[in-house]
Amino acid sequence: MKSKSLGIVETKIAKLGNLVLESGVSIPLEIAYETYGTLSPNKDNAILICHALSGDAHAAGYHINAERPGWWDEYIGPDKAFDTNKYFVVCSNVIGGCKGSSGPLTINPATGKPFASSFPFVSIGDMVNSQKKLLDYLGISQLFCVAGGSMGGMQALQWTVAYPEVVRKCIVLASTSEHSAQQIAFNEVGRQAIMSDPNWNNGNYGNNPPKKGLALARMVGHITYLSDESMREKFGRNPPRGNIQNSEFAVGSYLVYQGESFVDRFDANSYIYVTKALDHFSLGKGKELSQRLSKVRSEFLIIAYSSDWLYPVYQSREIVKALEVNAVPVSFCEINFPKGHDSFLIYNPEQEHLIRHFLTSEFRQNFSI
Amino acid sequence: MKSKSLGIVETKIAKLGNLVLESGVSIPLEIAYETYGTLSPNKDNAILICHALSGDAHAAGYHINAERPGWWDEYIGPDKAFDTNKYFVVCSNVIGGCKGSSGPLTINPATGKPFASSFPFVSIGDMVNSQKKLLDYLGISQLFCVAGGSMGGMQALQWTVAYPEVVRKCIVLASTSEHSAQQIAFNEVGRQAIMSDPNWNNGNYGNNPPKKGLALARMVGHITYLSDESMREKFGRNPPRGNIQNSEFAVGSYLVYQGESFVDRFDANSYIYVTKALDHFSLGKGKELSQRLSKVRSEFLIIAYSSDWLYPVYQSREIVKALEVNAVPVSFCEINFPKGHDSFLIYNPEQEHLIRHFLTSEFRQNFSI
Repeated sequence: MKSKSLGIVETKIAKLGNLVLESGVSIPLEIAYETYGTLSPNKDNAILICHALSGDAHAAGYHINAERPGWWDEYIGPDKAFDTNKYFVVCSNVIGGCKGSSGPLTINPATGKPFASSFPFVSIGDMVNSQKKLLDYLGISQLFCVAGGSMGGMQALQWTVAYPEVVRKCIVLASTSEHSAQQIAFNEVGRQAIMSDPNWNNGNYGNNPPKKGLALARMVGHITYLSDESMREKFGRNPPRGNIQNSEFAVGSYLVYQGESFVDRFDANSYIYVTKALDHFSLGKGKELSQRLSKVRSEFLIIAYSSDWLYPVYQSREIVKALEVNAVPVSFCEINFPKGHDSFLIYNPEQEHLIRHFLTSEFRQNFSI
Repeated sequence: MKSKSLGIVETKIAKLGNLVLESGVSIPLEIAYETYGTLSPNKDNAILICHALSGDAHAAGYHINAERPGWWDEYIGPDKAFDTNKYFVVCSNVIGGCKGSSGPLTINPATGKPFASSFPFVSIGDMVNSQKKLLDYLGISQLFCVAGGSMGGMQALQWTVAYPEVVRKCIVLASTSEHSAQQIAFNEVGRQAIMSDPNWNNGNYGNNPPKKGLALARMVGHITYLSDESMREKFGRNPPRGNIQNSEFAVGSYLVYQGESFVDRFDANSYIYVTKALDHFSLGKGKELSQRLSKVRSEFLIIAYSSDWLYPVYQSREIVKALEVNAVPVSFCEINFPKGHDSFLIYNPEQEHLIRHFLTSEFRQNFSI
């Protein structure tokens, strides 16, 4: 185990009654979540971390007997950017997902079987509303900060719009106010790959999931998370190592491996639900976005990566512009780090410094907790 | 029919005996080709056009009863950039393909059945060698010019290396001296999609082809041929038009349509053979590339598109640099046209002007025909 780790942590489940979705449909609400650090007596040090497409509630520390820590362990822990000596950090699995929160794997009380593809459509707004219920359950009425990258950034933004009085600081990394046609297109190919799998059966695949389709979806996605440069450095034009026969190139062999291992930890229906939530999320652009952000009371740190071609820097600039139009305090930083969209997940000192500084700097926003 | 068209043209087949591939394996060689214009008495006006991944010999003019002309009709014809009043233009289908030249659909004389996946691996060098045989058959010993975009550009480059004494001018559009890991990765996903299809049967699918896999491969490819900007302009975040139910977004619906229509005109084995030829092609980079290009005697026009993220401009610059190291005359132009990798296929006046000017300019190379 690494030094400065949180040590052993565990995922808990909160049963939270029902949630009425934006569509008007009601679902039984369970949320898988983890917490790190201690809530202060006046409950003003809570930070909500929102995960991306394939993430989960396990953001930091180690599960018992696990070799690898949570997905953002580099940034969350004692003395880290999200310093658990100071902050009470909460991370929950999104609804529609498959890591413990309500989603297609949830048992439908009416049938005694998993909802599967009868689970209703879930939006980014619904994810945020479910997180609000979790915070209520935990007795947290104010967020010192909400932070997330990619889909997590969309949730963070949505928090400031849906609950402007709750969120003091907001960190959005490698994200956007809405998907472009190209971003939708990559997700669409992933969904089509799943639905083209002979096991698909309109989502009612039971114990015989569309593994090949889901693996293909992941392979496509994985390419978009890396940069041209990072792939060249990692694989170049090399042949695969060892006796691997699934591709004539190292990069192909790696993608096949990534696809095949993904199907053991992700549900195909969830992949469809979560990518649809991503694609349908829209706070607009330009004037529309400015209007949507006109009521926010948070202050913002927006980080984009120059090597991120999936969520290009101009999308972050759009958000910054719309915030500035509203005279909302916002710090924007474009980081030159070569790992593509995945950059925000990987340790780099610049991101750590920016987060730490943003969290400890004085509020510029007229915000009374 | 448009004005200034070549009018009705037809694809011919040349039976050319056997071709010994670079691997040492011999294949029966047939080449599908078209010619436009007239070969001059001293046979010094021949231009070879090389097509890209899914192209064919039908580069210009109209087939009988066809509504759409050949794939580069905007650039080939009377008074066009490749002016058929002046030049004798030849375009042939690549071997390994499925549009009439030898490939997986060819009948294996030993079995009386299509070679299918028993067809031997074909390289870009083999494609060029087969074109050389076609030119010999047509009585053409010198090429006034060889030109192509994407995979066609690789063939054009290879021509100048393999037959330096034959090629006078060479035009390379939106291409590269070798695929990057990212380019290989996109092709690999396409191949994996085909091989994941339950109809695949190791390539011996007969009349029951892996249509869904091939459609997925095409969908992935299609995204990479367009630019972020052109997709935004064409589709934005719009829902599909009409009653189309295969996607919730116009861009998804378009991709599904593109995938489904592709399977009617392309063979899955050929897709694998041709993408492997692309991925294995390598003239190297930097010093290695300079050495490989040290014997070329052609002069070059290299065109790259700033919106082409699949074949980024830096790859064209690599070629230019290596030519300049060898003091080979080269004109380089980066065109600002928003259509992504597909730009070279689409009419734009800048490309037309550059090609026309390059063809009519005096030779700077010390080249005696």
